[in-house]
Amino acid sequence: MENFDFYNPVKILFGKGKIAELGKHIQKDAKILVTYGGGSIKKNGVYDQVMAALKGHKIVEFGGIEPNPHFETLMKAVEIVRNENIDFILAVGGGSVIDGTKFISAAAYFEGDEWDILAKRAPIAKAVDLGAVITLAATGSEMNSAGVVTKAATQEKLSFGSPLLFPKFSVLDPETTYSLPMRQITNGIVDAFVHVMEQYLTYNVNSPVQDRFAEGILLTLLEEGPKAIAAETPDYENRANLMWAATMALNGLIAMGVKSDWSTHMIGHELTAFHGIDHAVTLAIVLPGLLTKLKEQRGEKLLQYAERVWNITEGTDDERKTLAIQKTEEFFQSVGIKTRLGDHNVGQDSIDTISKRFIERGYVGMLPDVATSDVAGILESRL
Amino acid sequence: MENFDFYNPVKILFGKGKIAELGKHIQKDAKILVTYGGGSIKKNGVYDQVMAALKGHKIVEFGGIEPNPHFETLMKAVEIVRNENIDFILAVGGGSVIDGTKFISAAAYFEGDEWDILAKRAPIAKAVDLGAVITLAATGSEMNSAGVVTKAATQEKLSFGSPLLFPKFSVLDPETTYSLPMRQITNGIVDAFVHVMEQYLTYNVNSPVQDRFAEGILLTLLEEGPKAIAAETPDYENRANLMWAATMALNGLIAMGVKSDWSTHMIGHELTAFHGIDHAVTLAIVLPGLLTKLKEQRGEKLLQYAERVWNITEGTDDERKTLAIQKTEEFFQSVGIKTRLGDHNVGQDSIDTISKRFIERGYVGMLPDVATSDVAGILESRL
Repeated sequence: MENFDFYNPVKILFGKGKIAELGKHIQKDAKILVTYGGGSIKKNGVYDQVMAALKGHKIVEFGGIEPNPHFETLMKAVEIVRNENIDFILAVGGGSVIDGTKFISAAAYFEGDEWDILAKRAPIAKAVDLGAVITLAATGSEMNSAGVVTKAATQEKLSFGSPLLFPKFSVLDPETTYSLPMRQITNGIVDAFVHVMEQYLTYNVNSPVQDRFAEGILLTLLEEGPKAIAAETPDYENRANLMWAATMALNGLIAMGVKSDWSTHMIGHELTAFHGIDHAVTLAIVLPGLLTKLKEQRGEKLLQYAERVWNITEGTDDERKTLAIQKTEEFFQSVGIKTRLGDHNVGQDSIDTISKRFIERGYVGMLPDVATSDVAGILESRL
Repeated sequence: MENFDFYNPVKILFGKGKIAELGKHIQKDAKILVTYGGGSIKKNGVYDQVMAALKGHKIVEFGGIEPNPHFETLMKAVEIVRNENIDFILAVGGGSVIDGTKFISAAAYFEGDEWDILAKRAPIAKAVDLGAVITLAATGSEMNSAGVVTKAATQEKLSFGSPLLFPKFSVLDPETTYSLPMRQITNGIVDAFVHVMEQYLTYNVNSPVQDRFAEGILLTLLEEGPKAIAAETPDYENRANLMWAATMALNGLIAMGVKSDWSTHMIGHELTAFHGIDHAVTLAIVLPGLLTKLKEQRGEKLLQYAERVWNITEGTDDERKTLAIQKTEEFFQSVGIKTRLGDHNVGQDSIDTISKRFIERGYVGMLPDVATSDVAGILESRL
């Protein structure tokens, strides 16, 4: 196991009815900016629950944060925070709203060009306190200190983070997910699954606790995902388990002391930036190609994954690795995701553009086994 | 899954050489009380590493905190904190030193009879900031906000806790455990194992993530424990995995949303209070008797445990449950623990005294399936 520092001070308020408690976690005299997305929270009752819980507080609202939140949109909220002397920002929504809110929080006190927070990973010295009410189990943003923002003008999708951007609290009420379209549920399942894979399916560093935690999340997603799809009406326990699995998938814990990658995300981000493909769908497209390319280098972990997650114990090493990758892709397909670039009208032209961008940038993920020159081949294998 | 709140802001600094970093996690102008136990840290180099890391700070020392730390001893340190205007307390040692230090931290500002913090669970309004350098993987105290203290005068061993008592940071350097006697290593393994069992081996509430995390820790302890005993010289990876497993066993995470018990600990505490038996040994004595008594009520979880942890898949329900309990006890014995009361010269007289104490107290653990009237029978089955 490698040395590590772990710190995660997010207070989690988990369960049905928990939105009602959020008021007591924000200072009484705080002026609050409530951020949200396209307005679904006004239809499903979450907005009303939040406003009831915040009764007595001064509130300003900022709606319209889009999926893969745009720098341009978020800067409008930054102006509001500055002009209205906002003390606390409450994100109500999925990962995009929370990621966007983290950026608003970081940019509000930032001196200089706010895009540098993303483009240059400029350090954040001060941030507005923030909290979250999640309405979708997927990104883990509710329990970490990072986010991803897209500049629409240049089609760049970049990440940022700071310990100052941990939410003070996050409310995880599984009932908030009941009104979601199934496409968002399945995207969330695949997103969480690939988050785990980025941290787990790399190299063995003798980390049995972390490995088993990762495998435990994967097995839970494999069990609970199909149940969510099959259910005629949402089942509380099912949605609760998916929600907790997604949060645990990216709160930093399973990454401690191990080698993380994030190449699949980096390549996927480009497919979203250029083609608007759902984030989770891009991951489901890229991951099978990436793992196939790395079948030798990551063989030890692939065999462990095959046995412990898929119960594959027969066949040669190569057969077991191949079958595990195949089953992973079949799982993505079984929840309704189209896993080929061709399904999304992405062709060789786009691969060339994306490959060029990586070669210019000079890196892909966090491990040397995926070179910028590999990106084209990985994507071509997914046409 | 049940509703829950989770909050754990302890910063973990994990790995070899990490003691050197602790200075930067304490304010420069803080006056520090360094607490420790019997002085083994002065022989194994940990004391010197800590002092080097604290260079430049004003330091006061308080050594001599005994295993199962005594209220009477700790109150002497409380006087020092009050008289010397201590700003920060750094515990250097195992669970007893950290638990004792939490009590010192809580008692220093407490108005009234400090014993009420334990006897009446009196609320703690203010506490001295504390940190920890652990030298033994066992109790999990380094990443939680609770402790256990014994009043020598009355042979009472009671617990306390407050969110104010989370360490600000804890240094987990596996190399600090190299000089420990094997008895302390094996005690730590059994202690961590039973911590997990108290939170896991109860009732099914549909919590697959928590269950698999618990099982992952148990499997790790089963694999790594025997390796620690067999090793001629300490192996870093082995000690690191045991240390992380023990911390994860009791940092609150696996308890979220599930039904915890703690009866085994409550009964075990009395064996320590009256007979001075090592904490972990008391747990290894009590647990097999408790699980046998609850074979029906906790049958569902026992069968899951049998299958997932011990790979027991053959036989009737009763045979599988019995075998799982038997294998658990054999594991404790295999690491050198004597699991019968008779091995420790505890007889019926003592059982009567302990049983009476529980009947007077009116409760055992946190679940109704262990009544005060059950304690005698459970202990008699362990004679």
